[in-house]
Amino acid sequence: MKVSGTQGSGGDAAVRSVDVALGERSYSVLVGSGLLPRAGESLAGLGEISRLFVVTNPTVRDLHGAALEAALEGVAEQVWIEIPDGERWKSLETVAKIWDRALASRADRRSVVVALGGGVVGDLAGYAAAALLRGVRFVQVPTTLLAQVDSSVGGKTGFNTAHGKNLVGAFHQPSLVLADTDVLATLPDREYRAGLAEVVKYGVILDAEFFATLEARTDALLARDPVLLADVVARSVALKARVVVADEHEGGLRRILNFGHTVGHAIERAGSYERFLHGEAVAMGMTAAARISARIGACDAEPARRIAALLAALGLEAEVPADLAAETLHDAIAHDKKVAREHVTFITCEAIGRAGERKLTPAEIVGMLVEGRGA
Amino acid sequence: MKVSGTQGSGGDAAVRSVDVALGERSYSVLVGSGLLPRAGESLAGLGEISRLFVVTNPTVRDLHGAALEAALEGVAEQVWIEIPDGERWKSLETVAKIWDRALASRADRRSVVVALGGGVVGDLAGYAAAALLRGVRFVQVPTTLLAQVDSSVGGKTGFNTAHGKNLVGAFHQPSLVLADTDVLATLPDREYRAGLAEVVKYGVILDAEFFATLEARTDALLARDPVLLADVVARSVALKARVVVADEHEGGLRRILNFGHTVGHAIERAGSYERFLHGEAVAMGMTAAARISARIGACDAEPARRIAALLAALGLEAEVPADLAAETLHDAIAHDKKVAREHVTFITCEAIGRAGERKLTPAEIVGMLVEGRGA
Repeated sequence: MKVSGTQGSGGDAAVRSVDVALGERSYSVLVGSGLLPRAGESLAGLGEISRLFVVTNPTVRDLHGAALEAALEGVAEQVWIEIPDGERWKSLETVAKIWDRALASRADRRSVVVALGGGVVGDLAGYAAAALLRGVRFVQVPTTLLAQVDSSVGGKTGFNTAHGKNLVGAFHQPSLVLADTDVLATLPDREYRAGLAEVVKYGVILDAEFFATLEARTDALLARDPVLLADVVARSVALKARVVVADEHEGGLRRILNFGHTVGHAIERAGSYERFLHGEAVAMGMTAAARISARIGACDAEPARRIAALLAALGLEAEVPADLAAETLHDAIAHDKKVAREHVTFITCEAIGRAGERKLTPAEIVGMLVEGRGA
Repeated sequence: MKVSGTQGSGGDAAVRSVDVALGERSYSVLVGSGLLPRAGESLAGLGEISRLFVVTNPTVRDLHGAALEAALEGVAEQVWIEIPDGERWKSLETVAKIWDRALASRADRRSVVVALGGGVVGDLAGYAAAALLRGVRFVQVPTTLLAQVDSSVGGKTGFNTAHGKNLVGAFHQPSLVLADTDVLATLPDREYRAGLAEVVKYGVILDAEFFATLEARTDALLARDPVLLADVVARSVALKARVVVADEHEGGLRRILNFGHTVGHAIERAGSYERFLHGEAVAMGMTAAARISARIGACDAEPARRIAALLAALGLEAEVPADLAAETLHDAIAHDKKVAREHVTFITCEAIGRAGERKLTPAEIVGMLVEGRGA
């Protein structure tokens, strides 16, 4: 994995390229300004394409559909497939609709599925591509910060069931990711800040210098400074790519990406997936995880303090809401798919920039989580 | 790939083991008598198992369910999932039912899906396993000759849609295949003979000596001689494994397994998937393919003569029924998913034991197919 492109100390808005080296499943993540209008050129490197199935939702299509449609003119016939906007549509029914539309429009093995949207669109379109004719290529064009730095890289695809989130899916790597940082300008503030939570996570678990940069530049981050954004997205992607390359199917190292997610998922679930955005829940989960890490002796109190301060500076709530009952959180953690028997692999912070793991029971986690409430 | 176990000229009913060498996705196919009652021992080699989800249909469960249930006693908790019997149930709805049952019964990453049945059960259960929690292990216990020699080896899984057969699915290799030849004793005659068509195919495309053995032993084959059957299944599996190892995802060599299938699929489709069993249609398709091969100069007339004679001796109809109109066959071929633009990759016979391929249009294929009708 390497990051190429101009990244001088002065900084500019040139395109960065992060290579995800997974043998015959290798691909590039292009990050920077102006990528969407030049998508046609980027797709030229993929080889023969018979047909493009562009999966998106009405909200994203209104904002960026015309630009992408024009950019893909002449590459191949385009079939646009609209799915409803929102996490509750991340279902098998929506995937089935994509398959039906693609097959009705004569999908073949040279077809390419393009995901234009956030995490829901990317996960659904990616899974549809993974199974269509037993696997066709797909391209991610993530339009949220969260999707750019997280879900569009690494090949996790899938949908939600009545039993939980992402319980059915596939590891299916994209053939190309186009992370155009210009599209982040149209993102609602709340969604943008939620995406920053995952950016902070990469600093916590993998890169102390990056974390310090984020601390030093919170104003520019909130102002969505274009050059800083391109650097921050590219660095996040490069950090995630390093983990994915080392552990494609989450047998070991990849688990550290779940830092803040055990508690975060529980908070999301406790809020019926409506009250909190994923990144908001992860922000609270990271503070909690850092405090638990200190409590069990994995680190001192400093990481939790710095994490909470950085999240607050970025406009994110760092504390688990007091109205979420211990019992609710416990049940939500125990339900999570990552639970093997009664112990959870809990990702700890050993210092800013370094993660570890411990086996804890949901009861132990929640116990430490609510200890502070009495204090 | 190797075949181990006693295969002396005298022959006995000992278990043969065929290794399918696919790196970290390698597995063994065990072939022989008495494997089903000893399934528990065989599964011991798979590592930790939290829960077994056994997918089957009522017909197969009546015949072999009790034996397998007893054999798996003590290995792990068993959850039996019944799906309806028949190709028309090879649908997304049935797959969704398997996911739902498995998730409701607390499937986790150490779960193993076991497919007890023919091709439909194996393809559906395999696909369900491929996507459950983004992939859990699965074990094939094929109970038809066709499933033992073909569908249970190679990792092709999936379901049918309104647009055609097997258009959605995954390549997901089993962790183990238990081909117990004893279960073939209960197979209806028609289904048994249809399975022999795929056995003949391996001789035609890969192994002249095997083809000659089949020619010499038609009586023993029809009598389901146990020792011969174990040899024939093991040899078929070994031949298929050789092809799968060379080309796991059907980029090249694996296409030769489609010998007889371009016309065969068209015949199945023309018969609404009710009139002909898959193997019956493939038998007719192989004779047709051999004749077309001779017609375009890929071989002389001898392969078609020998193929037709062997199929007839095995009680299989070798000729495409005269009532299937040329236009119907043409449309069915053009619809097949393997059609890339207007040309089809048509697998030819260059001699008994050797396959090739040519690009032909559906019109050319059907033209040569019906030429003989006037004669």
